[in-house]
Amino acid sequence: MEEKLLLTGFEPFGGDKINPSGEVAKSLDGAEIGGYQVVSRVLPVEWGTARDLMERFIDEVDPLIILSLGLSAGRAEISVEKVAINYTGKGKDNRGNVSERNYIIENGPAAYFATIPAEEVVEELNKKGIPARLSLTAGAYLCNYVFYSACHHVNSRGKRALVGFIHVPALPEMVAGKGQSVPSMHVDLIRNAVISALETGIRSLTNCG
Amino acid sequence: MEEKLLLTGFEPFGGDKINPSGEVAKSLDGAEIGGYQVVSRVLPVEWGTARDLMERFIDEVDPLIILSLGLSAGRAEISVEKVAINYTGKGKDNRGNVSERNYIIENGPAAYFATIPAEEVVEELNKKGIPARLSLTAGAYLCNYVFYSACHHVNSRGKRALVGFIHVPALPEMVAGKGQSVPSMHVDLIRNAVISALETGIRSLTNCG
Amino acid sequence: MEEKLLLTGFEPFGGDKINPSGEVAKSLDGAEIGGYQVVSRVLPVEWGTARDLMERFIDEVDPLIILSLGLSAGRAEISVEKVAINYTGKGKDNRGNVSERNYIIENGPAAYFATIPAEEVVEELNKKGIPARLSLTAGAYLCNYVFYSACHHVNSRGKRALVGFIHVPALPEMVAGKGQSVPSMHVDLIRNAVISALETGIRSLTNCG
Amino acid sequence: MEEKLLLTGFEPFGGDKINPSGEVAKSLDGAEIGGYQVVSRVLPVEWGTARDLMERFIDEVDPLIILSLGLSAGRAEISVEKVAINYTGKGKDNRGNVSERNYIIENGPAAYFATIPAEEVVEELNKKGIPARLSLTAGAYLCNYVFYSACHHVNSRGKRALVGFIHVPALPEMVAGKGQSVPSMHVDLIRNAVISALETGIRSLTNCG
Repeated sequence: MEEKLLLTGFEPFGGDKINPSGEVAKSLDGAEIGGYQVVSRVLPVEWGTARDLMERFIDEVDPLIILSLGLSAGRAEISVEKVAINYTGKGKDNRGNVSERNYIIENGPAAYFATIPAEEVVEELNKKGIPARLSLTAGAYLCNYVFYSACHHVNSRGKRALVGFIHVPALPEMVAGKGQSVPSMHVDLIRNAVISALETGIRSLTNCG
Repeated sequence: MEEKLLLTGFEPFGGDKINPSGEVAKSLDGAEIGGYQVVSRVLPVEWGTARDLMERFIDEVDPLIILSLGLSAGRAEISVEKVAINYTGKGKDNRGNVSERNYIIENGPAAYFATIPAEEVVEELNKKGIPARLSLTAGAYLCNYVFYSACHHVNSRGKRALVGFIHVPALPEMVAGKGQSVPSMHVDLIRNAVISALETGIRSLTNCG
Repeated sequence: MEEKLLLTGFEPFGGDKINPSGEVAKSLDGAEIGGYQVVSRVLPVEWGTARDLMERFIDEVDPLIILSLGLSAGRAEISVEKVAINYTGKGKDNRGNVSERNYIIENGPAAYFATIPAEEVVEELNKKGIPARLSLTAGAYLCNYVFYSACHHVNSRGKRALVGFIHVPALPEMVAGKGQSVPSMHVDLIRNAVISALETGIRSLTNCG
Repeated sequence: MEEKLLLTGFEPFGGDKINPSGEVAKSLDGAEIGGYQVVSRVLPVEWGTARDLMERFIDEVDPLIILSLGLSAGRAEISVEKVAINYTGKGKDNRGNVSERNYIIENGPAAYFATIPAEEVVEELNKKGIPARLSLTAGAYLCNYVFYSACHHVNSRGKRALVGFIHVPALPEMVAGKGQSVPSMHVDLIRNAVISALETGIRSLTNCG
């Protein structure tokens, strides 16, 4: 049986009709990358549910790599996240709820570092001409929430998967005519970046083997 | 004989190996847009020479529209310029020269407005999902210089051409790995924007006729 | 009789309770700078009225220098404007009106350059440790409107006054707690900048004499 | 004997002749705030030495609160840091050295949260009209390094001190004439922010007692 890579994105939120993280994830569902099969899932932008589903997807798919994508409108380049923190801000989710507590896991560690080779992913993307940088904060909204949740689930259950998170810019059509100067990135470039990140992750699996 | 549209871009400058303004201009040389033929020319980033060549190209091609393109690294969207001013800053050109005087044409008017319908070009681009905005300054470097020079040549010689200028963002491969968060735009999107701008310009010609 | 300097600022707009341009102008009313007396006036943020009042103040005060101030929230430094253009955008004023036409003076010149020595003002401010830069656009809202109106009134009536415009940053207390990362500047620094700009303007008067 | 508050700042770095973090720290040395005595120390921008000195200062002063300050040129407001991570980037220090490893403490936890009430400090500053925000990353340079080092020293040695870190903007005179649009903040505002942060920290001590 073929080994799996779990790729997650989010549904649209905050008035947007599209979310490139979910679109790119869906577009790669079933693809074979480096001999592994991509299994894509779209997460709701909802405190609680997003974590529950992330945990369930990890259990069901039993992937070698968990790569989650999220939208960060305003960033100009692919942001490969280095660290997930046990903290939630006061942002409302798609149901209008705020996180009940300001931590994700009671008594969980303050943070987890990404276990995909984040620096190498960045280096490889820039080599390929796709603007990328290492980011030291995934924020305090749903993105950091599912990233931390995935790290904690893998760690506390002794699972084997490498975990990573990538923030992607808005699409050009999302920012056109909004009257603000917001950077954007072509969907093909984002998609290529995600494939490259998975390939770099796979190489690091092999190197360890 | 087919009527012409003059499309200019610039050669690379400031250490870049590529300039999307020149590349996109060249890629459209000979194309037919709205029944008119595009004639593309690449200008040097040189005080004096750039103006002399712009004037010569206008005389030779006798176009109905003059659309000039320039790179504005750092801008996130297509910037359609509203106004050209009779002013030069202290920027060095590709030969290391600075402009000898701080005006472009002695006793020339302080400014010319673009005669292509800049606001409509912006509106049309945003409708098509290409991020665009009206810009009220083309700077004080070679871009404003050739824009003002074209406006003045057309105006002082009683030529018929509409004149416009568009600043385009950097390409992704130009900013990748530079360690700064600079917005970029896919070359296809820039090319489509230029075609759309020419089409909008042509429509305004027809409306006037 | 002592010669006068006309210093104008604006009333608050867009939900702000304070406007540093008006506050700083008022704080200098009656001050003596370089042997001249400052006469300060606060303009309403209203299409039409602002221009009418500007013209009346110029006629009444008959100043040697007209320096107008406006707020540009988002800019980090003192912006000394180089050029005023005969153009208005679609911004609503404090009464909710938009400009009826997209030009300020029918058949007026496209632009006027500032006649205060804008580059020297910038240089002097930076020497004094006050962050400043030359700006090539005063926008298309009330600031550019009164700047162009003052230039045109002086020019078309053959008045002697030098004309200038300075955009100032927001005050710290205006941006605190707004949840956005907006630069600000201490009111004392803004006030010192305005005094310095007037002094530089006065020196240029003397040099010409 | 009076209880102590340890306040640290940094020496200038990267070509600057001044560092507001060190200047403000020194200006408060010996001050009494909320019944406690401020002891100020200036740290070198040097991998290794900075941590050794931080640990020594904590041992010598035995403070109730450790508040460290650092410069973050480019930020527009006071940034109260939420988290310190066990990670160092590739930045060169004042001796030209890079960190030998990419972690600060071998096998140390991935991160520590600030134990001063960071959210309350932010809220209180904004109430006072001093622009402030919670920051989720202190970077990967010397600032995060001493912040993490202080957290780890306190935690691993069972010390009582609350630990916090504040990034401050550049001073106006540092950015004037640099030709880039960098936000700045008046030194008095920074100083008041630091006093306010210490007062908020002290209140949280009392609340716990």
